[in-house]
Amino acid sequence: MKAQIITIGDELLIGQTLNSNATYIGKVLTELQIDVQKQVVIGDDRQEILDELSSAWAKNDLIIITGGLGPTHDDITCQTIAEFFNAELEKNDDVLTDIKERFARLNRTMAQVNESQAMVPKIAAVIRNHNGTAPGLWIEKENKIMAVMPGVPFEMKQMMTGFILPKLSEKITGGNTVTKRLTLLTTGIAESTLFTKFGDVKEFLQGAKLAFLPSQFGVKLSLTVTEKDDESAFNKLNELEQKIRAFAGRYIYGKDDDDLAEVVGNLLNERGLTIAVAESCTGGNICSLLTNYSGSSKYLERGVVVYSNAAKVEILNVDEDVITNFGAVSKEVAKQMAEGVKAISGTDLGLSITGILGPTGGSVEKPVGTVFIGICNQNGCITQKFNFGDDRLLNKQRATQAALDIVRKHILGIPLDA
Amino acid sequence: MKAQIITIGDELLIGQTLNSNATYIGKVLTELQIDVQKQVVIGDDRQEILDELSSAWAKNDLIIITGGLGPTHDDITCQTIAEFFNAELEKNDDVLTDIKERFARLNRTMAQVNESQAMVPKIAAVIRNHNGTAPGLWIEKENKIMAVMPGVPFEMKQMMTGFILPKLSEKITGGNTVTKRLTLLTTGIAESTLFTKFGDVKEFLQGAKLAFLPSQFGVKLSLTVTEKDDESAFNKLNELEQKIRAFAGRYIYGKDDDDLAEVVGNLLNERGLTIAVAESCTGGNICSLLTNYSGSSKYLERGVVVYSNAAKVEILNVDEDVITNFGAVSKEVAKQMAEGVKAISGTDLGLSITGILGPTGGSVEKPVGTVFIGICNQNGCITQKFNFGDDRLLNKQRATQAALDIVRKHILGIPLDA
Repeated sequence: MKAQIITIGDELLIGQTLNSNATYIGKVLTELQIDVQKQVVIGDDRQEILDELSSAWAKNDLIIITGGLGPTHDDITCQTIAEFFNAELEKNDDVLTDIKERFARLNRTMAQVNESQAMVPKIAAVIRNHNGTAPGLWIEKENKIMAVMPGVPFEMKQMMTGFILPKLSEKITGGNTVTKRLTLLTTGIAESTLFTKFGDVKEFLQGAKLAFLPSQFGVKLSLTVTEKDDESAFNKLNELEQKIRAFAGRYIYGKDDDDLAEVVGNLLNERGLTIAVAESCTGGNICSLLTNYSGSSKYLERGVVVYSNAAKVEILNVDEDVITNFGAVSKEVAKQMAEGVKAISGTDLGLSITGILGPTGGSVEKPVGTVFIGICNQNGCITQKFNFGDDRLLNKQRATQAALDIVRKHILGIPLDA
Repeated sequence: MKAQIITIGDELLIGQTLNSNATYIGKVLTELQIDVQKQVVIGDDRQEILDELSSAWAKNDLIIITGGLGPTHDDITCQTIAEFFNAELEKNDDVLTDIKERFARLNRTMAQVNESQAMVPKIAAVIRNHNGTAPGLWIEKENKIMAVMPGVPFEMKQMMTGFILPKLSEKITGGNTVTKRLTLLTTGIAESTLFTKFGDVKEFLQGAKLAFLPSQFGVKLSLTVTEKDDESAFNKLNELEQKIRAFAGRYIYGKDDDDLAEVVGNLLNERGLTIAVAESCTGGNICSLLTNYSGSSKYLERGVVVYSNAAKVEILNVDEDVITNFGAVSKEVAKQMAEGVKAISGTDLGLSITGILGPTGGSVEKPVGTVFIGICNQNGCITQKFNFGDDRLLNKQRATQAALDIVRKHILGIPLDA
């Protein structure tokens, strides 16, 4: 099944809004082994929408559209789709009831403009919206499918998971081959170094596909295999994964959608370990990522954002002389911060980070990008120094990732790099 | 000047990577008053790339391409563009020198695959890459322009700001009309409530364009005016802004790219105020956003992530009986947390937040989404209760935004909503 995603909205075209909808839809369709051929962004313009609908309808079996279903004057997707199919708009009573009940539940007065959202093309089945007022549309014609959803991400996602993905799963009949994907997530190793470790990559892959996807969080290795059945595909992927782990295992922190903070949280949870975190340069970002996961209160006891030297001394008992002699950004202060936060919290582990993220504050000896990370347990403390780049926000992300990876390595007994 | 953006990469198509490049490029081209007609994502596939190049080249004056220039086997953009223009590839000595110097500077051995990145189509001028190994390409032909860049965001951005945008600025000659845009950023008011305040929106706008862009951070109002000259456009935008501020001013925290954490930081800085933050449910996210900006150490003295009750009591001197009687998520605990963090830090302001983000931990009385925010200065403390939704991460973002907005209102003397 070939698919195209069309996201409609001037705000996407002119770069006011990140197109997270296209990313999400691409991902979930791919998981269903639907072949996403193209993503297109166009503006809230009648002719542009009509042209793109024609071209996409001719080339694909499935078209997924988001955006332009809101209650305001700039939203024209619904009527333009009606025009494309030469279908009349008619008032849908279920939708009108949904909208009225929604306003009643929120104790708000329903605006007249919201009533117009109950007008849908006759050709379409309605997808109910539990998180907003605009209904989605499901159109089947000429053995093809068009699904239309609002652009608000959580309204769209509810329609995808609650209606569209189950419907598509039903439609997909078994083909002659099975495609499976696996992504291995690495951090702390450069793309070209990793690539070189593969040797002759074509020989290594034996017909499988491999993409290297670098970012500030590390390099993702995305493997795709196509085999005659589920079992062969599973075995082939498994074999490739083991071969890659044999030479790069220490850099691999997870698979597919794993997030390093979640991986670290799960490790802490499984081992029954608690942690406390003292952050200077990352400003709370390490704790914030760890607490993105429900249940994090089991292992994260507390965190402190010791931005000022006074806070380092008062909360963590860092020695003022050590700050004076070695500087707040130093191996020595990182060590005392990790020891201090562990001591006041009574946790198994103490993690600390101090650095110069820039753009100001660098020196010849300690340029912007210098970061020290410390970790300690009951047996003592180790620190590692990093030299990141010039960009404050990239440095923050890389420093956070490095700190979380040090916790991972520490728990798993993987020695740190020199 | 009409433009299309083509971002190439299977990782975008199958939703492994957010397409932040298209967003960034859309934004900066729009700022130059270049009319972005379309964004397209296609995979690393020779025929798909050739087809899209043909269609885009026929319809636009400018094509911007990113992705597929890396050193690995799956990167085929450069040779496919050479094929499209029927141009040979030749070794570029400047690029080879850049790559060699880069590896020497990083103290790394250059892999053979990196040398192939110095092969560029004869038709193209090279855009030097200061942050990576793949060069960019600048092609002018038939009075049209094609610019090609790597997909790694910070390599792409350096080429845009250092080479492409200055070149495009030169090319753009004055037209007969001037288009200007302004986005007003609101938070704490629903889209439909805001829309209703405009009355007859067409009459209100007098020919200008207005888009409502809702997200978890609030509703953005994006105004576009097209007038005969700079001054008229400026005046028209200004007049509309004043009219909107007259009825919605208290909800407007900024313009265009403003970020609420930056707005709050600037307000603290201008007034010479210091702040300390005690976070429970947001887990450090408020501090992390405040410290995204260089100079934040002037106003953010410290933060604490008091995830456990013990941390609330030990660090902030919250009364254990108050936690027992009212619960850790209560107005009373929020007040004591704000007072406590202000007292231990000696700051002008203390901010606190405690809540139930979900998915677990809710009760009938305090369902998931219940959040209390407290703020105090030398005159006392106020708290506000919020009822957000079911989604943990959305709740976290909304709670963080609400807390920052309370600081903004507090400093500006805007009363909180009932």
